Amino acid sequence: LAGKVWVGIEGILWGFALKVWMFFKRACAIGANDPRKVIHCLKVGLALALVSLFYFIKPLYDGVGGNSMWALMTVVLVFETTVGATLYKCINRVFATFLAGFLAVGVHWVACRSGETLEPYVVGASVFLLASAATFSRLIPTVKSLFDYGAMVFILTFSFVVVSGYRVDKLFDMARNRVSTIIIGTSLCILVIMFVCPIWSGQELHSLIVRNMDKLADSLDGCVTQYFNQSGECTNNLEEAGKKLQGYKCVLSSKASEESMANFARWEPSHGKFKFQHPWKQYVKIGSSMRGCAYCIEALNSCIGSENQASLIKKHVSKGCMKVSSSSSNAIRELAEIVKTMKKSSTIDSLVSEMNSAVQELQNDLKSLPGSWNRSTVREHKTLEVAWSEATPTVHFPVMEMIPVVSLACILIEISGQIEAMVDAVGELAK
Amino acid sequence: LAGKVWVGIEGILWGFALKVWMFFKRACAIGANDPRKVIHCLKVGLALALVSLFYFIKPLYDGVGGNSMWALMTVVLVFETTVGATLYKCINRVFATFLAGFLAVGVHWVACRSGETLEPYVVGASVFLLASAATFSRLIPTVKSLFDYGAMVFILTFSFVVVSGYRVDKLFDMARNRVSTIIIGTSLCILVIMFVCPIWSGQELHSLIVRNMDKLADSLDGCVTQYFNQSGECTNNLEEAGKKLQGYKCVLSSKASEESMANFARWEPSHGKFKFQHPWKQYVKIGSSMRGCAYCIEALNSCIGSENQASLIKKHVSKGCMKVSSSSSNAIRELAEIVKTMKKSSTIDSLVSEMNSAVQELQNDLKSLPGSWNRSTVREHKTLEVAWSEATPTVHFPVMEMIPVVSLACILIEISGQIEAMVDAVGELAK
Repeated sequence: LAGKVWVGIEGILWGFALKVWMFFKRACAIGANDPRKVIHCLKVGLALALVSLFYFIKPLYDGVGGNSMWALMTVVLVFETTVGATLYKCINRVFATFLAGFLAVGVHWVACRSGETLEPYVVGASVFLLASAATFSRLIPTVKSLFDYGAMVFILTFSFVVVSGYRVDKLFDMARNRVSTIIIGTSLCILVIMFVCPIWSGQELHSLIVRNMDKLADSLDGCVTQYFNQSGECTNNLEEAGKKLQGYKCVLSSKASEESMANFARWEPSHGKFKFQHPWKQYVKIGSSMRGCAYCIEALNSCIGSENQASLIKKHVSKGCMKVSSSSSNAIRELAEIVKTMKKSSTIDSLVSEMNSAVQELQNDLKSLPGSWNRSTVREHKTLEVAWSEATPTVHFPVMEMIPVVSLACILIEISGQIEAMVDAVGELAK
Repeated sequence: LAGKVWVGIEGILWGFALKVWMFFKRACAIGANDPRKVIHCLKVGLALALVSLFYFIKPLYDGVGGNSMWALMTVVLVFETTVGATLYKCINRVFATFLAGFLAVGVHWVACRSGETLEPYVVGASVFLLASAATFSRLIPTVKSLFDYGAMVFILTFSFVVVSGYRVDKLFDMARNRVSTIIIGTSLCILVIMFVCPIWSGQELHSLIVRNMDKLADSLDGCVTQYFNQSGECTNNLEEAGKKLQGYKCVLSSKASEESMANFARWEPSHGKFKFQHPWKQYVKIGSSMRGCAYCIEALNSCIGSENQASLIKKHVSKGCMKVSSSSSNAIRELAEIVKTMKKSSTIDSLVSEMNSAVQELQNDLKSLPGSWNRSTVREHKTLEVAWSEATPTVHFPVMEMIPVVSLACILIEISGQIEAMVDAVGELAK
């Protein structure tokens, strides 16, 4: 029995060890994939170790009156991955603490004047009212996007200082200490985040948009090519092609991250190619026009997925469709290049007009469709009348074959419209 | 001059007052729109006022050794709008504090044994390493979704306790005090959030999904009706109709909120109709299948927006399209009803088969399209040959008219496919 139990325990232990090992392996893979994550972690460690010096070095510790813990807490709470997010939190924290400290000292002064018995009621009521009001302000979208964290720190500091005032004698000293330690913590954070391998929200947003545009172009190209040309595909890069095809899904799902990045990027000082107050909002607009295009590619994908047979009509439209898709994706790639280099491009106009003429050609192809289909299929029959009467009752009537191809062409034309919206959005940015 | 300056100042003051007034008006509108937001604010105020009692009542204050501020901070940091989010933060905070406190006391013991000079290095290195490791764990998706807040609290508590250990003598007391005040704060939060007008994440997610399904059905109906029937519309409810038409956009943009709600709902105990461990993940799946449908409606909308002329073909397909769209939206509404009542429905199968037969009919209509179009347009010409030869060079060739209608029909058929995916997802939930 003991042997059995031992085997059981051993099994469980091994299983656990295996799980831990798998977890570590996955963690290592994540680290290796994106070394900046590892750097970020080391930066947090560094900032905390630096702020610990306020405990280890006696003069520093005495300097802030033994309140170093606020600096420590500030570092933990404020340190974010990107410079923008950290700056946003730092600035919010400092200003909210100032404001709340002043208000709290004021309320404390009033409460003291109102007598021993009334004091807790005054303090309690002020906490209740101001906390409710500040919480409410966090629910208003405009305030939320700029001062969400600040409102929270305001509630925290205000209630902390004003309630402590009931027990602590030197309230003003406490408030001053809290403010000074928070300033120490935030400035340390800002130094570390800005000078040790900084990751800028703006730069991230910029490259996200460029990357997504390239993905969009690849998806569009891949999708149409795959539909019209099944033979020339090798099996070994099928997986890669599938991955490329799914690229547009990144565009669909990156709305939230684009918005938050644009929000944080507003707080960043000028860095690299970007000035302070770079028009980050415009990137969000470009992003949403890209999503408009991605929705179309989604529709394209599902309309292609339903069937995939060779047909005469397909052959007929193939050239036009390929031309529209390749000129569209060229235009998208050029747009990506414009966003990337932040320079106006002279070729984009010619690319757009090339796209438009390809669209026109495709429309002409579609218009001439029944004509050409006549020529190729009807020649066997002597007269058209016979062709019609014979064709109508059968299921393999060309119209059914036509539908997916025609709707593909339609969506392609729609995509070219969406691309013009993208061109406009990028043009706004170029100004 | 003084008069001018006065007028200027007055203008600025009035402008400022006006802005403040507008802000208040908007805030009131937000409050009136969603009274639960106001209730949430009052709950935060209540929780803070309650936790202040630990300052005001002498025995309570002495009971926690003057460390009431941790309870206060806990309330501010942990209180969220929904029960699930608050519970998630509370549970994370308590466990992370326990774990970090134990580890910190252990590291402190080791540091003390290692001698006066080595102590700061041991402490600093441990802070650096553990903070880096914990930060890294926050970047791993699986850990992030469950323990993000816990990892932050772990870093905070660990570095706070271990670094304070260098200056504070009674470290164990401090750690114990921190843990006990945090437990006081979290239990107070849990009491207030669960018993004063609770807002459950799960309930919210549930009604969001139901609401979005209804919106989807309305959009689909409205879109198709508007396209085929421009005459019967009154002008006064045009705006409302436009609003209904745009309903599907809510579905497109609610991905992030669905996911976070499902994440928080996992922490909630059984409430209302929902048991603990209700399959919340399935709601996310239903949501994503709804987005699949919404993408199609987006495509439908843009394909309709391009042109809107009456034509013979439109008339021909109109009935079939209307039937598909109405049977589809009926199926969606029934799905919403199933999700709402959480009961299996016998009618859904018949609705789906009705939808499928409508799709089949529409396909038949499409198949017979050139036939019927022949009959109606070609009758004027004597032979078909003449019709072809005459029609080919002109722009008003029926194929161009056909394209938007055909692609609309295609997208409708695609939508019915997406609805079947939704039926499957809802069926999974019903199990």
